Amino acid sequence: MEGLKHKLNVILVEPSGPLNVGSIARLCENFGVKELRLVAPRCDPTDKEAIRMAVKGRKFLENAHVYPNLLDAIGDCQRIIATSGRIDHGEIPLSSPKAAIKWLLKIQNEESIALIFGREDRGLSNQELLLANKVISLNKKSDYPSINLSHAVAIVLHEISNNLTKDFALEGNNCEKIAAPKDVNNFAEDAEALLLEIGFLYQHTAKSRMSKIRSLLQRAEIKAEEVSLLRGVLRQMRWAIANKNS
Amino acid sequence: MEGLKHKLNVILVEPSGPLNVGSIARLCENFGVKELRLVAPRCDPTDKEAIRMAVKGRKFLENAHVYPNLLDAIGDCQRIIATSGRIDHGEIPLSSPKAAIKWLLKIQNEESIALIFGREDRGLSNQELLLANKVISLNKKSDYPSINLSHAVAIVLHEISNNLTKDFALEGNNCEKIAAPKDVNNFAEDAEALLLEIGFLYQHTAKSRMSKIRSLLQRAEIKAEEVSLLRGVLRQMRWAIANKNS
Repeated sequence: MEGLKHKLNVILVEPSGPLNVGSIARLCENFGVKELRLVAPRCDPTDKEAIRMAVKGRKFLENAHVYPNLLDAIGDCQRIIATSGRIDHGEIPLSSPKAAIKWLLKIQNEESIALIFGREDRGLSNQELLLANKVISLNKKSDYPSINLSHAVAIVLHEISNNLTKDFALEGNNCEKIAAPKDVNNFAEDAEALLLEIGFLYQHTAKSRMSKIRSLLQRAEIKAEEVSLLRGVLRQMRWAIANKNS
Repeated sequence: MEGLKHKLNVILVEPSGPLNVGSIARLCENFGVKELRLVAPRCDPTDKEAIRMAVKGRKFLENAHVYPNLLDAIGDCQRIIATSGRIDHGEIPLSSPKAAIKWLLKIQNEESIALIFGREDRGLSNQELLLANKVISLNKKSDYPSINLSHAVAIVLHEISNNLTKDFALEGNNCEKIAAPKDVNNFAEDAEALLLEIGFLYQHTAKSRMSKIRSLLQRAEIKAEEVSLLRGVLRQMRWAIANKNS
């Protein structure tokens, strides 16, 4: 995540599964996280299962910062979001992920971010949740079981990245040349003539059937190169019909 | 996902990691997916590592439907999204996840959804991508390594669930029936055979040229009725070639 590079830290509190820790290291690499921090881990982050899952994120395991408690782990962070699997938090108000991320992105130049994720089995304690500025829950309904730790990390990082690059123009990144309307029209007229010749169209059906085909081409935003291809098909059809010897 | 219950199928093409398949079964349970479908899996979905990762999603492994190829696996689905790790697809246009999900949620009562995810090492082939209605990429930048398979599934399901709670069933419905992928595929194969016969295609160019045509049909979101129209054109062409007297 370009805009947040060197700013975003992922903090796992007492993680116990090397597969999870390894998968999360891979995510750190995927999303350009600064540091992976572990609070009193209950497994070895350089366990071979962790390293297998980390793939290109191995360096996050080797350089993982280990802290005795959560407070130390977030000591240098100013924007802190904690995640919770539970929906009911008593006193602790939940933010919607959207609102929390919006707030996160108001980050100032010199600030750092912490995203805190709890234990696989029982999440974060209320005391821990209260150390964060915002608490979000990823569970929509209480009757669905809680999601896997690394999936929670994937979802949160992806949401942040999404908001960061909000109008990232994936649509229409295709630079290929759209066909000139004139060329599309010429092709359609040519096709119509051939379809009349071979008896697929009749004068009284031609217009409405050709409209369907034209509408298909329009919807596809047909490209110049594709019109040439289809014109080639027509040419060869004419040739095949004229030269059939049987 | 309440609104999509009994509608959403997750399809994995040739998955090779039992940990991934198990994690994805857990996600299926988390997000209320209907079926987990496997196309020619390269691992045993009831492997003990898979079952360990599935937690409460174990039944998705035990009931996983196995298919020999992708076309069979999507046979009963009308709204089909494929995911790709690559950003550059040549011919195949990418939709933004947002736009694709918006389209997905226009689902009609009797329709089913397929979400297709590719192999851990090399994703989906272009031929496979072309069987979908929409192709999305989760990678924002080409310099980040691709994300783990189960994380991709987590992100897509979460995005859908997010949007579902926002605006399910608010959008006006487009009532025209989208063509079944099987019918589009049959048409394309039929067209290819004819174009080979008349010498427009050669064995060595057929695949790449037909990809261009398939991609055009995909982009257009071709309708059932249009496929019938084009099949009529093919039939009449064959007749004209066979019956030419000159």
